[in-house]
Amino acid sequence: MALIVQKYGGTSVGNPDRIKNVAQRVARFKAQGHQVVVVLSAMSGETNRLIALAKSIQSTPDPRELDVMVATGEQVTIALLSMALMEMGLKAKSYTGAQVRIVTDDAFTKARILSIDEENLRRDLNAGYVAVVAGFQGVDEQGNITTLGRGGSDTTGVALAAALKADECQIYTDVDGVYTTDPRIVPEARKLKTITFEEMLEMASLGSKVLQIRSVEFAGKYKVKLRVLSSFEEEGEGTLITFEEDAMEQPIISGIAFNRDEAKITVLGVPDRPGIAYAILGPVADANIDVDMIIQNVGADGTTTDFTFTVNRSEYSKAIGILQTALKDIGAREIKGDDKIVKVSLVGVGMRSHSGIASTMFKTLATEGINLQMISTSEIKISVVIDEKYLELAVRVLHKAFNLEQAA
Amino acid sequence: MALIVQKYGGTSVGNPDRIKNVAQRVARFKAQGHQVVVVLSAMSGETNRLIALAKSIQSTPDPRELDVMVATGEQVTIALLSMALMEMGLKAKSYTGAQVRIVTDDAFTKARILSIDEENLRRDLNAGYVAVVAGFQGVDEQGNITTLGRGGSDTTGVALAAALKADECQIYTDVDGVYTTDPRIVPEARKLKTITFEEMLEMASLGSKVLQIRSVEFAGKYKVKLRVLSSFEEEGEGTLITFEEDAMEQPIISGIAFNRDEAKITVLGVPDRPGIAYAILGPVADANIDVDMIIQNVGADGTTTDFTFTVNRSEYSKAIGILQTALKDIGAREIKGDDKIVKVSLVGVGMRSHSGIASTMFKTLATEGINLQMISTSEIKISVVIDEKYLELAVRVLHKAFNLEQAA
Repeated sequence: MALIVQKYGGTSVGNPDRIKNVAQRVARFKAQGHQVVVVLSAMSGETNRLIALAKSIQSTPDPRELDVMVATGEQVTIALLSMALMEMGLKAKSYTGAQVRIVTDDAFTKARILSIDEENLRRDLNAGYVAVVAGFQGVDEQGNITTLGRGGSDTTGVALAAALKADECQIYTDVDGVYTTDPRIVPEARKLKTITFEEMLEMASLGSKVLQIRSVEFAGKYKVKLRVLSSFEEEGEGTLITFEEDAMEQPIISGIAFNRDEAKITVLGVPDRPGIAYAILGPVADANIDVDMIIQNVGADGTTTDFTFTVNRSEYSKAIGILQTALKDIGAREIKGDDKIVKVSLVGVGMRSHSGIASTMFKTLATEGINLQMISTSEIKISVVIDEKYLELAVRVLHKAFNLEQAA
Repeated sequence: MALIVQKYGGTSVGNPDRIKNVAQRVARFKAQGHQVVVVLSAMSGETNRLIALAKSIQSTPDPRELDVMVATGEQVTIALLSMALMEMGLKAKSYTGAQVRIVTDDAFTKARILSIDEENLRRDLNAGYVAVVAGFQGVDEQGNITTLGRGGSDTTGVALAAALKADECQIYTDVDGVYTTDPRIVPEARKLKTITFEEMLEMASLGSKVLQIRSVEFAGKYKVKLRVLSSFEEEGEGTLITFEEDAMEQPIISGIAFNRDEAKITVLGVPDRPGIAYAILGPVADANIDVDMIIQNVGADGTTTDFTFTVNRSEYSKAIGILQTALKDIGAREIKGDDKIVKVSLVGVGMRSHSGIASTMFKTLATEGINLQMISTSEIKISVVIDEKYLELAVRVLHKAFNLEQAA
């Protein structure tokens, strides 16, 4: 008997028939003697519907109130699945984030989980119930309803698996695993049987939509066995996310990720003195805007420099506004920006021990006449920022250049 | 400066424009220096949409899970109104039933309020916030989400007014007050400036849809000053519900109420011995079915009797089923029922001191050939059960017979 946490996304619970399908899958696991915790998203489209409704009242909806509203989406699906399970003769009980109690910080619309009280769940599991938990939501210490931001249901699933010390956390999505890159762009993209946590972390952070990055971080931190599966297939093992020590020889490159949701901001003519990076990014961070890539070059004249970073496209205008206000304090000359860029990244733990990956990448892109606007590297990835019009071309030529269509 | 609780129903918050209208009305009261607590229903149609969704999964939805779902309707409107108030520059904050904390018993879908923790609300009101509270919902002692049943938002409003010792509880609806009877049936029906609590209680219990009966009970018990107003009119004083001691001379009859939602059940050939009423109604009450009128006649043969009662039409089949099962235990001969009946009632505190009301009523109905199937009286009302086809006719002739179109 194992304890399994299963997370189903919005398309998997998009209508009553699909909810009944989820109930059948859960029932199969229960019939095998497992304890099952189910984490659900809202019905697909529901969160967007609620946000649109909020915007019809307030162009920038108050974050606390927005969370009160959008948290209702999951509250509906957990009740529906519990009913579907009872209809099949199983014992089931729904839990909102507040009822579990999933405690988060108070950063409304993008809260982080601080702690989970797993006692009630454990008691109900031991009494034979399927526990059906609302993903994406929690409460802060004062009892205000919070949400974890887009994709936060994955994080809820993994965090519950960690708190309950579950044997496996299964993430059911509308894809059947993790691919070398998006098959809609490269038809030859190949499904990976395994991927390491570090690679998955990079893939997620780079915009691969299969798993939300925080869920992967959580899984790595608490060593949760994580598997990505299709909710529309009866069979299939999906992609298992492994710890490197478990893995056999790794391929050099596991996949190509990309992110269309980025925008680039450059602060020109910044005085080249200590503390200047903080002067620029401090106000941005205070506004709760996440910064992704950061690049600072030595200035040509030795006294000033240019400072470039990327933010999520949805926060581009807000970030520009903040910097315009801070321009004088920073002592910079000018703010420039571009929200028509994308980031493309090669990811692979094997990269560490192989030189020449970067030069092959740069040469491949140069051959196609694609200009590199920013470059950033880590031990297991190389990212470049390019004009968004070259995205598909860049991904295709890189997929071919590194032979990703063939199993390593 | 007064503390005012305002309750708005589903049609008053049925779309974004109407929500903005509510915000403007609230702002006018704030501008006059009052503290305002707003209690909201779900958008009109939303509760029914959610119930239909639940029924697509489970023909008789699990009550606990149904409450989890339908409670989301108010959670959406409180967030939207809070946003609308902020958009007008006011401080506002939404509260779910759990957040207030409105503690109820655990009779899901028809819970009763046990206690209200008003401290958080009071603190926010003193800090200048408009408190926007979800009507219709609470939590039981274990933190399970409960709902108060149809029309429960009125009860929430009055209960909050009582807990906060508010100066007035204003119930905004799509009618502009309480009428002598339904103007759709009798065009000459007249709006009452005042009505006593006892009369309002009878009107509500008899099916007048202006206020939910429990809210009137609450108001009477805690001496909450209650006023019914239209949310679609700028002006108008609505109908004030008074305590009898405040009132001047009362008219004999204040109004005519009726209820189309009733069904009649008769248990025939019941042994005429002590405890038999309990034997019949015990199983019905155990199934949480409310019984309205109860009549037992002395049996013709001296050893058996017939026992008749009415229930809500929606619970008719369930009640019949329960009694069929209990038939042998009761020792009765047969169960008969009729769900094509209505109840028509005359209400008036003045009735106490005037004889002849009943005979005028019975004579008026007899003249029209309307047969009386059941009769029940209290100090301030006389109710009769008749065939539903005579409803409009009965109400019209009684309205005329008692000169209700003229102010007393």
